[in-house]
Amino acid sequence: MTDIEYMKLAIKLAKKGCGWVNPNPMVGAVIVKDGNVIGKGYHQKYGELHAERNAFASCKTSPSGATIYVTLEPCCHYGKTPPCTDAILNSGIRRVVIGSCDPNPLVAGKGIKLLRSRGIEVTEGILKDECDTLNESFFHYIQSKTPYVIMKYAMTLDGKIATRTGKSQWITGERARQRVHEDRHRYSAIMVGIGTVLLDDPMLTCRLDNNRNPLRIVCDTRLRMPLASRLVTSAKSIGTLIATAVPDQEKHQPYLEAGCDIMVLPLKDGHIDLNCLMIRLGERKIDSILLEGGSTLNWSALKSGIVNKVQAYIAPKMFGGSGQTPVSGLGVDCPDEAFKLSKPTVIRVGEDILLESEVIGCSQES
Amino acid sequence: MTDIEYMKLAIKLAKKGCGWVNPNPMVGAVIVKDGNVIGKGYHQKYGELHAERNAFASCKTSPSGATIYVTLEPCCHYGKTPPCTDAILNSGIRRVVIGSCDPNPLVAGKGIKLLRSRGIEVTEGILKDECDTLNESFFHYIQSKTPYVIMKYAMTLDGKIATRTGKSQWITGERARQRVHEDRHRYSAIMVGIGTVLLDDPMLTCRLDNNRNPLRIVCDTRLRMPLASRLVTSAKSIGTLIATAVPDQEKHQPYLEAGCDIMVLPLKDGHIDLNCLMIRLGERKIDSILLEGGSTLNWSALKSGIVNKVQAYIAPKMFGGSGQTPVSGLGVDCPDEAFKLSKPTVIRVGEDILLESEVIGCSQES
Repeated sequence: MTDIEYMKLAIKLAKKGCGWVNPNPMVGAVIVKDGNVIGKGYHQKYGELHAERNAFASCKTSPSGATIYVTLEPCCHYGKTPPCTDAILNSGIRRVVIGSCDPNPLVAGKGIKLLRSRGIEVTEGILKDECDTLNESFFHYIQSKTPYVIMKYAMTLDGKIATRTGKSQWITGERARQRVHEDRHRYSAIMVGIGTVLLDDPMLTCRLDNNRNPLRIVCDTRLRMPLASRLVTSAKSIGTLIATAVPDQEKHQPYLEAGCDIMVLPLKDGHIDLNCLMIRLGERKIDSILLEGGSTLNWSALKSGIVNKVQAYIAPKMFGGSGQTPVSGLGVDCPDEAFKLSKPTVIRVGEDILLESEVIGCSQES
Repeated sequence: MTDIEYMKLAIKLAKKGCGWVNPNPMVGAVIVKDGNVIGKGYHQKYGELHAERNAFASCKTSPSGATIYVTLEPCCHYGKTPPCTDAILNSGIRRVVIGSCDPNPLVAGKGIKLLRSRGIEVTEGILKDECDTLNESFFHYIQSKTPYVIMKYAMTLDGKIATRTGKSQWITGERARQRVHEDRHRYSAIMVGIGTVLLDDPMLTCRLDNNRNPLRIVCDTRLRMPLASRLVTSAKSIGTLIATAVPDQEKHQPYLEAGCDIMVLPLKDGHIDLNCLMIRLGERKIDSILLEGGSTLNWSALKSGIVNKVQAYIAPKMFGGSGQTPVSGLGVDCPDEAFKLSKPTVIRVGEDILLESEVIGCSQES
């Protein structure tokens, strides 16, 4: 097997941590000696051992003289666990093959430098793009200290997210809806506007086996959230945060009693200040948010520059009429003023198409 | 070379007739003897020789004992030219390899049967899908006697065909716009609603070298077309047809004098009857129409069942706001009532994406 094949295996391992490691990155590690895989590991859960240490722990023969493949540069600082570079140095590993460099300012090439200074051969950038994609939200978060925001919506091929009567169940097929639930498991939080709550009364949970529910965030400037809504009535068992501009603590009381968390934010253009919200969520270790609309909140989010990526599920059907589109709000006057996105990647998801595109010039690292 | 490779060459030749042969099909033919291509031909222009005869005419050595590859079943009836099966039988050809079967009720397997009855070996269905796609509009037209209608639009990833101020120049990049001009050359006619004329005052010509302009059709129920519009003032040199429900011949006079053609149609739901229009255009040998909107006409066209295919160019940008979507009109109430399309094919066109999908249950052949 080649370096690329071993790295593919490490990536596959890394993905097993999906949804459980945030705000840490997903990392996988494979130890190879004389052409045999003698150890495998991945970062399983936030606060627990890193991938390298799990790989060493799995070895039944000595890793001395072996090569370790790791999807992300090993850390060289004390976090919740001691530095992985120490573990590598103590193990007698002779060569380290790395996918992504760690953008964490506490690591950022220092791990690689340290290993090399101790005489270990280091190969960088093997399947770098795949490894980078694996942790795009981590990379963003570690540098900006704000969550990576993915604007997700499902629309018809004529650009509607609902019929003229406001109905949207269902636009896409089962496979696409399943994939959304996988993303709800993957990302730390899910965010909607109060309009969506009033219209659909959604649960916003992850309906998969062995899942983790994202924190449910509702942008509710004027605190109109119905106490009888499914979000409020389920808030004791599933994390629910209301972001509002209403500071009146008496008005907060019934929501707090129902188990909701409330964050009071300044107003900006008549809505809660989304940039401020992102900073405050980052402080709470929310590294990633699946923004599930509606169209008014989508516009505010785009306009305030908090959106990093757009995920558009497109169903091969037509509604016609005056149903909502994915992004409304004021909108731009001229085509030249459009918000620009990167060249989309396109995949088929069942009968539907998924276009993914990064917002250009929005995130700090681009 | 294999059968498939020779058929690929025949398809390449067929495409040279694109835009010049309507309402005939594009057809290419290659004659192969002892592993050498000894003849090539394609149907070059409506009314002129068919591909097979052009291929025979190009032979410098006798085709006796050779194989002919032809993208479409040879005709066996007298049309504008004598039957191609005669030419094949007279040539001494030993084997005929065919891509598509001809759905023309006058041919429909009779050509193949005739050849076999005379002891010629016939192989069918080589690159059938590619050959069928080449002539999808012909296949539709020959069976339904109405034009094949392609609804084409360019929208942003948030489903807008214009900004809130009605501006749409430009949504897609140059490569996509170039491709639309290639389609304007390819199809017999282009159709828009009066709303588009009043808003954009378009020319609807094909801006390519060595081009053919499509017939320009405007659906103008109440005959509101401005006499000063670019369509009317250029009607003497470029075919322009106004489809209206206004029967008053006095009102037609200035348009007729300007060189426009006028077709009076019955009303249906407050608009001209599009089904009736399609029958009348079919009678005039219009085999294919590029429907370039706007959204009101698109809805009427979908609703009346005349649309065969949707071509959606999607630009990686966002307008937001309340700009028009590709299809408006009344629209459906429930997602279940949506117009359903086939699994889309997806290609990149420069920075944009093109989704193509067939309307399910609209055309007679599906």
